[in-house]
Amino acid sequence: MFPKNTYVNRRNILKQTLKSGIVLLPGNGESSMNYADNWYPFKQDSSFLYYTGIDHIPDLYFLINIDTGEEILFGNNATPEEKVWIGAPEKLESFAEKSGFSTVKPLDQVASYLKTQLDKGLHVHYLPPYRGAQKIAISNLLNIPLAEVEANKSTALIQAIVAQRERKSAEELVELNEAVNITRKMHEYAIRNTKPGMTEMEVAGALNGIAVSGGGGLAFPIILTKNGQYLHNHATTATLNEGDLVLCDSGAYNKMGYGGDMTRTFPAGKTFTPLQKDVYNIVLNAHNTAIEVLKPGIRFKEVHLLASKKLVEGLTDLGLMKGNADNAVAAGAHTLFFQCGLGHMMGLDIHDMENMGEQYVGYTPELEKSTEFGLKSLRLGKELQEDFVLTVEPGLYFNPFLIDERRAQNKYMDFVNYDEVEKFKNFGGIRVEEDFVITKEGSDLLGEPLAKTVADIEKLRNN
Amino acid sequence: MFPKNTYVNRRNILKQTLKSGIVLLPGNGESSMNYADNWYPFKQDSSFLYYTGIDHIPDLYFLINIDTGEEILFGNNATPEEKVWIGAPEKLESFAEKSGFSTVKPLDQVASYLKTQLDKGLHVHYLPPYRGAQKIAISNLLNIPLAEVEANKSTALIQAIVAQRERKSAEELVELNEAVNITRKMHEYAIRNTKPGMTEMEVAGALNGIAVSGGGGLAFPIILTKNGQYLHNHATTATLNEGDLVLCDSGAYNKMGYGGDMTRTFPAGKTFTPLQKDVYNIVLNAHNTAIEVLKPGIRFKEVHLLASKKLVEGLTDLGLMKGNADNAVAAGAHTLFFQCGLGHMMGLDIHDMENMGEQYVGYTPELEKSTEFGLKSLRLGKELQEDFVLTVEPGLYFNPFLIDERRAQNKYMDFVNYDEVEKFKNFGGIRVEEDFVITKEGSDLLGEPLAKTVADIEKLRNN
Repeated sequence: MFPKNTYVNRRNILKQTLKSGIVLLPGNGESSMNYADNWYPFKQDSSFLYYTGIDHIPDLYFLINIDTGEEILFGNNATPEEKVWIGAPEKLESFAEKSGFSTVKPLDQVASYLKTQLDKGLHVHYLPPYRGAQKIAISNLLNIPLAEVEANKSTALIQAIVAQRERKSAEELVELNEAVNITRKMHEYAIRNTKPGMTEMEVAGALNGIAVSGGGGLAFPIILTKNGQYLHNHATTATLNEGDLVLCDSGAYNKMGYGGDMTRTFPAGKTFTPLQKDVYNIVLNAHNTAIEVLKPGIRFKEVHLLASKKLVEGLTDLGLMKGNADNAVAAGAHTLFFQCGLGHMMGLDIHDMENMGEQYVGYTPELEKSTEFGLKSLRLGKELQEDFVLTVEPGLYFNPFLIDERRAQNKYMDFVNYDEVEKFKNFGGIRVEEDFVITKEGSDLLGEPLAKTVADIEKLRNN
Repeated sequence: MFPKNTYVNRRNILKQTLKSGIVLLPGNGESSMNYADNWYPFKQDSSFLYYTGIDHIPDLYFLINIDTGEEILFGNNATPEEKVWIGAPEKLESFAEKSGFSTVKPLDQVASYLKTQLDKGLHVHYLPPYRGAQKIAISNLLNIPLAEVEANKSTALIQAIVAQRERKSAEELVELNEAVNITRKMHEYAIRNTKPGMTEMEVAGALNGIAVSGGGGLAFPIILTKNGQYLHNHATTATLNEGDLVLCDSGAYNKMGYGGDMTRTFPAGKTFTPLQKDVYNIVLNAHNTAIEVLKPGIRFKEVHLLASKKLVEGLTDLGLMKGNADNAVAAGAHTLFFQCGLGHMMGLDIHDMENMGEQYVGYTPELEKSTEFGLKSLRLGKELQEDFVLTVEPGLYFNPFLIDERRAQNKYMDFVNYDEVEKFKNFGGIRVEEDFVITKEGSDLLGEPLAKTVADIEKLRNN
């Protein structure tokens, strides 16, 4: 946990912003795999964690009654019989002390407490739930029909929390750096140890192990694939062969629950082919160009479009595209090869606060999210501020289905040399991703640098 | 997948048993970690998998209308846009063909189909759901209030499925052997590579990696701890030191979804202390004694009590217990050190079919589960049959809280030398666990043998 004052201050700011009502933050429960008591690794709710610092304990509710000033943790300490199974975990009262509040009540009192407050006419603010069990709990506790739970979420609470969590403090940056360094270790391992003949799963398994050993586990399902042209293709039992490109997008949480998210693309054999090198350098150039312009005040949507233009210019040099690059980007022709967004916010969540809604996290009332193919997958568009943490992850993805579809639709005919593109239908995909914090003047890389030029990656492959 | 006939036969047997009504088998959805689209590894529902063979695809419903003979898979194939993200997965129609049924309908037709059947007065059988999202789905599809979903489960369906799944076929045993061999690899790695100075998490991470590389991932959260006296103590950031005993209880699924579950206890240093050796041998002796009597016809509760008696005899030799061993077990005095059950059924679930209810899986109307401390944690009590697969996992757990509590209660005074027991409050816990299939005459070990004597474990530690 951070020092007590961190949590006290975070809660004070929240209270000052909301001014009245009750904030209900449900902690997560255990998540069942294939029967009730067979659990996935426990993951605390990020906002619960942000305001209380309490991790690893399922079935807690934290409640701030802004009108009365009460801050109450509802939950149960281990019973004598539970000590047979789990020993004597730290008491909730001890966590309360470390978090700077004093009241702990048994779990079964949360319902009656809320009922009393609802009867008084107080408004209960809650975030949109993302697990079935949370939905059921909120429905029961607040007497809201299940189908209306989502609609009754508090946008005031969402906006207040986003405004706090989107700017990372110095102590959070220490944690994020650590998470990215664990993530970096996973990628260095993959680059050094992948060999032709191994399966995707074999390599992914080792990375999973590094993430767990790091203390926080996997931040998201590992993408480790020779079919990087499909954006979210998870590791399979496919064998990696000489000549394949391996796209690895993976990351870890650290012990404090902060995440890292990186991508490297490297050859399954010792070296890139000349063509792989050329395409790689186009992506890397877009990546570097984007990083150079990161600073407070620039809209990330502009950075995305700039990176897209660099991709188009590179593809034009390679003979796959033609015409004016600005016009191509304006027409969306780059989305034939770069179908997603340049990056996203990162913090306690890998797509930070994604469940609160991208319109609040990545956009503003003045800059709404586009519904166009490509831009609709850009999770972050708004003006950057100092202390934002985000990923930069341009890529080129030669998706054969999309190529066939767009060609059949006669789309982007002014900008795409489809005959040339046909030759890339077995090429795969390349992405280069790193994590940055926005500083007063620009940005800083999170974590220690890791090989990202063709030469440096080949050097790691050959060591 | 197994050959088509496997699934056709399994469904035919189910239909013959139930005779009429509709069987609704919901497949699992993705399970959200800390926002909706950040998922834990997908785990298919075991009964859905057993009757269809379809894994890795979320959001499917399989439905057998026994009265009309219809077998329908409700689900959606990837849309063109989804192919950008995941490529072109195998079509549902292809899985249907491999599974031996012909009808695939879009997901959104499951509700109207069921409504029509309910209107006709047909009974819909379903299993008790174990995820919030499943509960909500069943409530909506069958128009049952959420609070009554559990009560309306079909005990006829539960009993029919248990009768099928509890006896493993030859082709299932091949898979179970593979799963146990992946599990064995995890344990051999742990015994060979654990060193003083490493954290529990570091070792657990590597084992997690081996499980993922094996193709099916972790079958349950890894218990890897120097505090083995707490039965379900998961790996923490605690450092393993010379002199510590390391209890590792972990297992993997194989590619077909079958699980393995083993435990080994070994010294963090190179050798056991003389006292650790003595206690280890008591557990090993109980383990071996239990294995010797495994065969069709014997109640597993008897095996549990026999193993308990062996533990008492060993503890008596060691000076911790006294008096007649049979009387001690009858009085439950062994539960001061062995608080749980000797084993459980294993298959597609590690605690096989646990969510259907232990009264159906592990007991019979003639042999109900005890509510006494100790026996109430024995998941399997009933007569063994050929082709049952189960774990044998006796242990001795010196839980300081329980020792204090029982002594304060003056419990088991005729059988326990509490002054001697006090000296073991820092000893830890020891468990030895392997997996067996019941054969015509006895039992066979699943997987290749792994060191389990003190000498063999020390040999592995020193290689």
